[in-house]
Amino acid sequence: MPELRRDPIINRWVIIAEDRARRPHDFVVEHAAPQGGFCPFCEGHEARTPPEVFAFRAGGSAPNTPGWRVRVVPNKFPVLQVEGDVEKRAHGMYDRMRGLGAHEVFVETPRHETSITALPDAHVAEILHAYKARLCDLKRDRRLLYGMLFKNVGLAGGASLEHTHSQLIATPVVPRRVVEELEGSRQFFDYRGRCVYCDIVDQEMSSDERMVMATERFVVVTAYAARFPFEMWLLPRRHQSHFEALTSEETDELAFVLRRVLRRLERALENPPYNYLLHTAPFNAESLDSFHWHLEIIPRVTRTAGFEWGTGFYINPVPPETAAEFLRKMEDA
Amino acid sequence: MPELRRDPIINRWVIIAEDRARRPHDFVVEHAAPQGGFCPFCEGHEARTPPEVFAFRAGGSAPNTPGWRVRVVPNKFPVLQVEGDVEKRAHGMYDRMRGLGAHEVFVETPRHETSITALPDAHVAEILHAYKARLCDLKRDRRLLYGMLFKNVGLAGGASLEHTHSQLIATPVVPRRVVEELEGSRQFFDYRGRCVYCDIVDQEMSSDERMVMATERFVVVTAYAARFPFEMWLLPRRHQSHFEALTSEETDELAFVLRRVLRRLERALENPPYNYLLHTAPFNAESLDSFHWHLEIIPRVTRTAGFEWGTGFYINPVPPETAAEFLRKMEDA
Repeated sequence: MPELRRDPIINRWVIIAEDRARRPHDFVVEHAAPQGGFCPFCEGHEARTPPEVFAFRAGGSAPNTPGWRVRVVPNKFPVLQVEGDVEKRAHGMYDRMRGLGAHEVFVETPRHETSITALPDAHVAEILHAYKARLCDLKRDRRLLYGMLFKNVGLAGGASLEHTHSQLIATPVVPRRVVEELEGSRQFFDYRGRCVYCDIVDQEMSSDERMVMATERFVVVTAYAARFPFEMWLLPRRHQSHFEALTSEETDELAFVLRRVLRRLERALENPPYNYLLHTAPFNAESLDSFHWHLEIIPRVTRTAGFEWGTGFYINPVPPETAAEFLRKMEDA
Repeated sequence: MPELRRDPIINRWVIIAEDRARRPHDFVVEHAAPQGGFCPFCEGHEARTPPEVFAFRAGGSAPNTPGWRVRVVPNKFPVLQVEGDVEKRAHGMYDRMRGLGAHEVFVETPRHETSITALPDAHVAEILHAYKARLCDLKRDRRLLYGMLFKNVGLAGGASLEHTHSQLIATPVVPRRVVEELEGSRQFFDYRGRCVYCDIVDQEMSSDERMVMATERFVVVTAYAARFPFEMWLLPRRHQSHFEALTSEETDELAFVLRRVLRRLERALENPPYNYLLHTAPFNAESLDSFHWHLEIIPRVTRTAGFEWGTGFYINPVPPETAAEFLRKMEDA
């Protein structure tokens, strides 16, 4: 019998309609052929991207030359542009503003690797440190209200280049999904005096139904009302509203966890296309008692988006408990 | 310069980032090969679907035999099931209920056509009459709160069978996107005393910027804050909250309009995959002053969903004004 489940934060209902005929292997997606030819993200090709805004480099190496380990550059084809004012205007009954913002690319390694999991833990930690550094820098720009960090992997994940990278889009508005989470978690807090994400962590730690991995400071679970097969949420176990508030030690542990759960996902679904998205508190918010940063990991293995886009109603053919069991079984590589 | 636009109903911002390098032809999507072999929707194969719940048939022909023009059957692989009670339960801190509901398929013609536009206007009108009939029947079931009517076309549109059809999913909850529209339009109404959709109709009729087609009773425009290239909204010009309240004469005119705009879309983008979705008022609502039914038509020609799913932030590379101009130019076939 199918089941309807409610997301406890934003009140979205999803249909968990187990398709018993389908095994995890049935969600394996065909791969694109490896990209041949010139890669603008590889070491030595620094001139083929806009000049870097941040990098971790060997001592003494000059910007925009080899010697870097992680390099952040403006997107060559930005969806938003950083110059000028927001210029809010009406258009008859409609509202618009200039497409002001930042669109940056994190080139995660100078070598031509196609997955972040090919990098050692310490290197993944540097990528996370770069995320924090760019968030902290961009939030000083008072025109910008939010920084969205995300990773696209694979063609179906929206990646046009296979060299492992992530992106940050900073906007003069807070994205709708984040607003919904902020409002939903504040309502929960107003009513119960607790953070709903802390409650989720507590409930999930008390059983292994949806548990994928837990360490001292972090937990990864399949979401109770998961929209997509094998959707995972990574949360800090201790309440923390801003990702960029992570200490260095916490960042190292997060790198350890992130690399391992992504590796499990790659093993489980044979290197699927996926996205991960960081939901952290807005730039202009102080530390929030009601909101708790988290990373959503979304494999892109089903093809049902039109209906979902139009209704907000998701149909997930893999119960989160089945997905968690399968992901737990994937030994760490 | 890119632009941020706000949807006036649900306050969603989208980035309109015109990609001048891309012409409409660049959004043409590769087609799947025609499906050969057995089609369970073709006339004479009635036994291969569950028994019909509704049909328009030639006088004297028996149910589940040839002689029908439009036939409605339960989905053979329903995501929801109609037997039993809702059984709302807690699961620790979470909420769930049984996946109760109806999932029906409208087989739109006995012939193996792959597009609704291959049918004459009068036949399209019968399909719309069947929509109304099923909505009216299902709303008598007090366990169900909403009926979502939609059409998936093409592989990327989520269609597994090419024989032209549409679907209805009736649920014991109102889908989130519809709730957002109901709330957003009610807030607008409370503040201004007018229906926001009526205001949209007025504004769009006063200029042809985003106009695709208008008749005496209906208008089709590209949405001001369109999420997707060539996204269109079809609305009745006169305020009407429930689709099923359409008179017979209005239904005929709607068939005329719907068939023509879909034909234009097919000509513009060479038979793209698409979805259309009907947003009408909930089953248990009386006639609403603040809500106005509409049909959203979403071509599935871009591949950026992971980011959009995670943030609610859409990036549209085709300004709605450009799309409207292009769609206006497509002569009616």
